[in-house]
Amino acid sequence: MAPTSFLPHLLFILVISSINSSFSLPTFFPRAPQQSLAQSSTKTTNKNSKLPYTAHYFPQQLDHFTFKPNSYKIFYQKYLINSTFWDQGPTRAAPIFVYTGNEGDIEWFASNTGFMMDIAPKFRALLVFIEHRFYGESLPFGKDSHKSAEKLGYLSSSQALADYAVLIRSLKQNLSAEASPVVVFGGSYGGMLAAWFRMKYPHIAIGALASSAPILQFDDITPWSSFYDAVSQDYKEESNNCYEVIKGSWDELMAVAEQKDGLLKLSKTFKTCKSLHSVYSVRDWLSTAFTYTAMVDYPTKADFMAPLPAYPIKEMCKIIDGFPAGTNKLTKVFSAASLYYNYSGTHQCFDLENGTDAHGLDGWDWQACTEMVMPMTVSNKSMFPPSTYNSKDFEEECVQKYGVRPRPHWITTEFGGYKIKQVLKRYGSNIIFSNGMRDPWSRGGVLEKISSSITALVTEEGAHHLDFRSATKEDPKWLVEQRKQEMEIIQSWIDQYHADLKDSSMNQ
Amino acid sequence: MAPTSFLPHLLFILVISSINSSFSLPTFFPRAPQQSLAQSSTKTTNKNSKLPYTAHYFPQQLDHFTFKPNSYKIFYQKYLINSTFWDQGPTRAAPIFVYTGNEGDIEWFASNTGFMMDIAPKFRALLVFIEHRFYGESLPFGKDSHKSAEKLGYLSSSQALADYAVLIRSLKQNLSAEASPVVVFGGSYGGMLAAWFRMKYPHIAIGALASSAPILQFDDITPWSSFYDAVSQDYKEESNNCYEVIKGSWDELMAVAEQKDGLLKLSKTFKTCKSLHSVYSVRDWLSTAFTYTAMVDYPTKADFMAPLPAYPIKEMCKIIDGFPAGTNKLTKVFSAASLYYNYSGTHQCFDLENGTDAHGLDGWDWQACTEMVMPMTVSNKSMFPPSTYNSKDFEEECVQKYGVRPRPHWITTEFGGYKIKQVLKRYGSNIIFSNGMRDPWSRGGVLEKISSSITALVTEEGAHHLDFRSATKEDPKWLVEQRKQEMEIIQSWIDQYHADLKDSSMNQ
Repeated sequence: MAPTSFLPHLLFILVISSINSSFSLPTFFPRAPQQSLAQSSTKTTNKNSKLPYTAHYFPQQLDHFTFKPNSYKIFYQKYLINSTFWDQGPTRAAPIFVYTGNEGDIEWFASNTGFMMDIAPKFRALLVFIEHRFYGESLPFGKDSHKSAEKLGYLSSSQALADYAVLIRSLKQNLSAEASPVVVFGGSYGGMLAAWFRMKYPHIAIGALASSAPILQFDDITPWSSFYDAVSQDYKEESNNCYEVIKGSWDELMAVAEQKDGLLKLSKTFKTCKSLHSVYSVRDWLSTAFTYTAMVDYPTKADFMAPLPAYPIKEMCKIIDGFPAGTNKLTKVFSAASLYYNYSGTHQCFDLENGTDAHGLDGWDWQACTEMVMPMTVSNKSMFPPSTYNSKDFEEECVQKYGVRPRPHWITTEFGGYKIKQVLKRYGSNIIFSNGMRDPWSRGGVLEKISSSITALVTEEGAHHLDFRSATKEDPKWLVEQRKQEMEIIQSWIDQYHADLKDSSMNQ
Repeated sequence: MAPTSFLPHLLFILVISSINSSFSLPTFFPRAPQQSLAQSSTKTTNKNSKLPYTAHYFPQQLDHFTFKPNSYKIFYQKYLINSTFWDQGPTRAAPIFVYTGNEGDIEWFASNTGFMMDIAPKFRALLVFIEHRFYGESLPFGKDSHKSAEKLGYLSSSQALADYAVLIRSLKQNLSAEASPVVVFGGSYGGMLAAWFRMKYPHIAIGALASSAPILQFDDITPWSSFYDAVSQDYKEESNNCYEVIKGSWDELMAVAEQKDGLLKLSKTFKTCKSLHSVYSVRDWLSTAFTYTAMVDYPTKADFMAPLPAYPIKEMCKIIDGFPAGTNKLTKVFSAASLYYNYSGTHQCFDLENGTDAHGLDGWDWQACTEMVMPMTVSNKSMFPPSTYNSKDFEEECVQKYGVRPRPHWITTEFGGYKIKQVLKRYGSNIIFSNGMRDPWSRGGVLEKISSSITALVTEEGAHHLDFRSATKEDPKWLVEQRKQEMEIIQSWIDQYHADLKDSSMNQ
């Protein structure tokens, strides 16, 4: 979810879409609007040097699961620490809260997971944020890390989880904190990793808070159309007219494009800095705005990737609904999308087609082409142009780009997902799956309570890992309540851990 | 546990021991006595062509956890099937019993796990035995599979578990048996794999019966001296004199060796076919006999690797105790060891030093040098010559032999082990750990009940996965009772699974 390095998948599809007109599919997070269209660096510039963390580098093993001479190669994995509130010492055994980093610079997750910092004093917890291999500075082959399948091959979720296991174990040993319970936190893909970490390494983490983790978005567990249906529902629930305008805008867009000088007209309507080469750039530009605004439809103003007002979908629909009768749909949707791209009002024009430059072999794009295969379609119910999913085409694209075939059933083989309630009810404990229903990714999440210790916290008005953001005075009651529940549940895990620890009969 | 391919580790140490006189450490199972000293083939000849199984070959992926071009290489993994008793059909969903193969030809495990065949009719179960990669016919690089660390690097427990997951999932799909619950079975290293499979893949197996699985033999969880202390205790409990004779025999052995023509004298005493070159060959020959006899100290006569009478330790001690006063110790221990090597009476002489030939890069030896590091020492309490464990020396030996360093903490990082009671009580279910206390490997096993659904079945007079052997009329009551308990527990897992399946609220 780092601002610049997240659109690899989207970028990838954008490139494709300009060829075959297929609809672009979302990645977890887009590049930051202001930056993404202006720069193509894969390194985020959104680093907050004032973060209250110290950076460290752990000598990590390249390949945990094979024992070839190459497997032993060491790379330096970055992690951040804040020990301000930690009640250290072997007798106290205060907890360690670990963020299982996802697809981007670890600073970005640290600065956007204020929740952990907010609760650290109450728990007297040590905070650790571990960067995911092949992102940020944790590049096993330095600048060449993304240059070939031979190198990128080591970028996988299983290797990342093993990295966390090895690092946490070593850290606890070095800090003489072996008795301290570890709780893992993660949002989005990081939330999947947190949940999976608890499932695969229950001996290392006593529990996991997985926020907006669509672990059921794989194979055919979740209907493929649910993501865009959910986005559309957000708009429809706000205003049926708003939904209908957006839904009708695509035909109008194509109709204008087919006119003489159509692209020139569109260039004017969409205030592009340069003349447009393809109508699909506009389509993707618009759908990106509507989709990502749904994800970050937060109840307070936020500056996640760019400044946005509270409830930005409501604001977008206000714009659309506020036009006088007879205004054409493209003018309306352009204005609405401008809220997403230009809320601060600094842009005079938009560079819609810069984003279609292939940025090379980015991390998430690779992951999407290997194991993180989340098929999506766009149904007639949605407000987006209908789109199907063809696994053969997808495979061909990946083979062409990376020379590797996707393994679409691997995630469900390795981590499960089918009949998750039946499986986890009988095997597992201490996981919170939190989801906000405004976030379209919620549809691939765990939305039902599984057992007394595997809980689903669902907020109707929440968005993509909203609970992980720093508390603000404007937070609605239900959000304050959600975070309070999370803290209570985490406290119960820690209490149980300490009670078990005292029970000497368990110290086999 | 295949008869010829098991002594790699022991062989390895034997080679070393002839240099530095360190005591040889056990592998799970020795080569078959008659064969091992005569032939050096790594393929067992103990195949029973009359086995009621059909052989199949599954196209398996070389590396599940990386996505390099090489990772996608396919090899053919052998598995055996018996569907005689299976009540197939989507509505019946009768269970699938899978044996998670260990370090050897899969036929050998199938023919020595008669328990599964015995219980299949009652459960109407499909039986599947899956061969472990790099053993038997499941060689990813054919005959060259064991020729370099580059190739052997793909031999690891995690890869093996993923093999089983992928194969089982595919098999269920091909058989339209997706609703059939899978129970995994394994003995010894295969028992570790069965237990770990349930821990890592609870969505694929509803339960595991792990027989004689020393999953706590790693790091410093179990005292390093416990294995040989346990062997010694077996003899001491049988007869203190027997224990004392064996314990005293090593000094006598060394004293004779130091005499003029000592080795020649020993060659005569031990009826060697060729003159001895080293006294350590005799030491290892004897200790092997006493150690492995403890493992297979079954209450009925058995023909596991070689024919042996019921309670062979009792018989060995009878031999030792039966000599007239004044007989020297070496004569006594030679006679006792002969029971192990020559119960059938077919050998006229023994080839003690053939076993010290390095057999090259065998599978288990590789595994012991990479992840399956189970440190062992011999204490003064034992009847064996004292021996220490030096991890640096061990590492050097492995580097010298394979060019790879052991990763002694990896197994406990990946699978846990420390505070297992505390961890599994709160996370896990449906595992039976069965152990017989006559088996020295039991000391590294789970011997205490962990929770209502993670059980330890301990038999005082049981030996190495005795419960997995075919039932015989001579089986003692406690063994019949143990197997009955195992069946009842497995039945309860299946019943629970079907009850959950009917509960539609769980079919998320």
